[in-house]
Amino acid sequence: MTKLTCTIKDLEVKDIRFPTSLEHHGSDAMHGEVDYSAAYVILHTDSDDGIKGHGLTFTLGKGTDIVVQAIEVVKSRIVGLSLKTILEDFGGFWRSIVRDGQLRWLGPEKGVVHLAVSGVFNAIWDLWARKENKPVWKLLADMSPEQIVSLIDFSYITDAITPQEALEILKENEPSRGKREAILREKGYPAYTTSVAWLGYSDAVLKDLCDKALSQGWTKFKVKVGASLEDDIRRCKIIRENIGPDKEMMVDANQRWDVSEAIDWMKNLVQFKLKWIEEPTSPDDIKGHADIAEAMAPFGIGVATGESCQNRVMFKQFIRDGKIKYAQIDSCRLGSVNENIAVLLMAKKYGVPVCPHAGGVGLCELVQHIIMFDYICVSASLEDRVCEYVDHLHEHFVDPVKISKAAYVAPQNPGYSSEMKPSTLSDYLYPTGNVWKSLDKDGKFFA
Amino acid sequence: MTKLTCTIKDLEVKDIRFPTSLEHHGSDAMHGEVDYSAAYVILHTDSDDGIKGHGLTFTLGKGTDIVVQAIEVVKSRIVGLSLKTILEDFGGFWRSIVRDGQLRWLGPEKGVVHLAVSGVFNAIWDLWARKENKPVWKLLADMSPEQIVSLIDFSYITDAITPQEALEILKENEPSRGKREAILREKGYPAYTTSVAWLGYSDAVLKDLCDKALSQGWTKFKVKVGASLEDDIRRCKIIRENIGPDKEMMVDANQRWDVSEAIDWMKNLVQFKLKWIEEPTSPDDIKGHADIAEAMAPFGIGVATGESCQNRVMFKQFIRDGKIKYAQIDSCRLGSVNENIAVLLMAKKYGVPVCPHAGGVGLCELVQHIIMFDYICVSASLEDRVCEYVDHLHEHFVDPVKISKAAYVAPQNPGYSSEMKPSTLSDYLYPTGNVWKSLDKDGKFFA
Repeated sequence: MTKLTCTIKDLEVKDIRFPTSLEHHGSDAMHGEVDYSAAYVILHTDSDDGIKGHGLTFTLGKGTDIVVQAIEVVKSRIVGLSLKTILEDFGGFWRSIVRDGQLRWLGPEKGVVHLAVSGVFNAIWDLWARKENKPVWKLLADMSPEQIVSLIDFSYITDAITPQEALEILKENEPSRGKREAILREKGYPAYTTSVAWLGYSDAVLKDLCDKALSQGWTKFKVKVGASLEDDIRRCKIIRENIGPDKEMMVDANQRWDVSEAIDWMKNLVQFKLKWIEEPTSPDDIKGHADIAEAMAPFGIGVATGESCQNRVMFKQFIRDGKIKYAQIDSCRLGSVNENIAVLLMAKKYGVPVCPHAGGVGLCELVQHIIMFDYICVSASLEDRVCEYVDHLHEHFVDPVKISKAAYVAPQNPGYSSEMKPSTLSDYLYPTGNVWKSLDKDGKFFA
Repeated sequence: MTKLTCTIKDLEVKDIRFPTSLEHHGSDAMHGEVDYSAAYVILHTDSDDGIKGHGLTFTLGKGTDIVVQAIEVVKSRIVGLSLKTILEDFGGFWRSIVRDGQLRWLGPEKGVVHLAVSGVFNAIWDLWARKENKPVWKLLADMSPEQIVSLIDFSYITDAITPQEALEILKENEPSRGKREAILREKGYPAYTTSVAWLGYSDAVLKDLCDKALSQGWTKFKVKVGASLEDDIRRCKIIRENIGPDKEMMVDANQRWDVSEAIDWMKNLVQFKLKWIEEPTSPDDIKGHADIAEAMAPFGIGVATGESCQNRVMFKQFIRDGKIKYAQIDSCRLGSVNENIAVLLMAKKYGVPVCPHAGGVGLCELVQHIIMFDYICVSASLEDRVCEYVDHLHEHFVDPVKISKAAYVAPQNPGYSSEMKPSTLSDYLYPTGNVWKSLDKDGKFFA
């Protein structure tokens, strides 16, 4: 641990927003016009090598300043600590932050404060991995089962998984890790694309993007639905005709429906041979998802959810009681890598494939590390598993994701792939960066 | 509606904190040292009569500034609207705020943003009731069933209660409203006290407060537990011996335990004849509460929860699937009166008594209106029902709660009883008010 002897001297946080609403990227049934954004964290240290930790949490524009404010409050618990102190009992340290006696009233472990915790811990993970000179997925893949278990706060989930059960899962897969790491380095982690069918795109754009994606080798496609049934049928038809009968197609309603509405609506879409319906209703409704899952089972359609699932306690219930077929972890919604690993282990125990949510800004960069670790150490399988990919905003990262043959290429650089370029951090700073100032001048925002 | 023609010209929000941690008020198993606080909202209008709307959302000190920031963001959706516009479709307006396409990513409908929504809508309710020259409970009690139903956003709960079912409940109780209003005006709404047994109090203080409460006529007592089993047994013994075998006693673990831990721990406390165990585990764990409820049923102990239940979707599941025996609504956790009414109606349909959470600062003042409305229009019963009361910080309100013979006296003044005194708003303003400046000078805070 000697190389980990650095102290966090300051935590800097920035409100970074991209005006994606100008082109309807990211539009869905519940989020018409969104500006992909991030509360961006930089941990400054006294490290001789000048290493910093970069982390972020994803937002949709408005309210990013609220998350920034929350990170400012969490900051007082972080600055002044050595990395070694944090890592000595990382799971315990994580718990001590989310259990802050005054702050936890604002959650607990959900919403703005939990997003803030995620951003801060994402930066700690980046810092740690850089100090170890490894990408996060490899840092994790080189840990002993005991070390991995020590990262987790098991509070409120021991009725679903105990530390001992977690250890057994990890130990069983330990001898064969090398084999899967080699496969990963050769072939990458399989991905699907959501870039072709946002709700705000015209039919011509849909067709065009579909053709382009097919020519790039994509075989799995997700379509946004839920605003208008007639439109959904037309759009699904276009996509299914374009991709042919054998490729995989999923739909995503982004929480638009009540339970019975979801079931009725989906009965009109089963004709398109769908792999899953994603977020059919409120992300808080465990029983609702179970009811929808039962109604969809005869059609071979699974229920997927998780990008808005607030913490491991809710995931426990979705995985164990909610009959979901796919668990969609998010690298910034859950409390960073620590809490995501808890969910991976529960998913493994209960036989639910993890198919991460990604997209937005930075989510692909981060979550690729978690799902690669999942494959090597936890699930030990690629069966029925696929990670979301969206082709937006990667150019703003120092170490952007790489996709080859519809698969994520394993990152090689040290860290969590979370560092944005300096020019991005200045140009897209809200509201004073150049991009925002010029939009303001053009009358496109801040009307 | 002519008298409702006023426009909201500005929304002012203040960070008000009380240094309650200096005397261990409010200490429990998860919140050792808390400073009862509020993000406090004032709606300024162009009303000729100078009427303003006062609202608040309750917090525990640190992080109040985060909620203030969230209210600043919500503000842009409120300022400039006339009260009439808001009330024309109040349920729809409420939905339009919680469904904001960019902000809802930070929840949805939970945590900091939902607390902010609650504070703002509490101020709207105060404004409305003042314009109608009625206390909020009476404003509600004079509405037609149709008007009441129009206040509610039924999104995500129609599988538990439809607008039609809600209407039927309200219509059934309509003819007998007057009888219950008369009882309420004569006898008030029954209360229990939590003031005697906070976790940080010494045994001598416990005994002393218990004697005092008995002499004031209290018959129902709640004890904080969960930090140390040995201490809990000793403290429960003191209380039970002091109050005698016939008075009601409840315990509250404030989310301290995992599921099996809760069951094991509670088996040591069943000897004290307890009415309920409150918040035994995570407020997100529906199945966990159901499991604890099953284990406690043979001992005649019910499970109570709700003060941290984030919204109507979670309450739906706790009430319908979670086997809770008592639903503890909170006037600031849920999205103001609108969302609370949805929960009252579901509780009525599924036969779960509502026993509100109160205390902190302002929660008693606000929630008394909701539970009085519940009695008159929804539950139509006082059986097995009781509202929490804590004897702190009422002196800061213009129209503080009144307790007589262990019951809340029905408020007579117009509004939501939510207005703090001008001197409080200046002295306790954080961190620049006189109280905080002098604590700073004494070295007691801001070390």
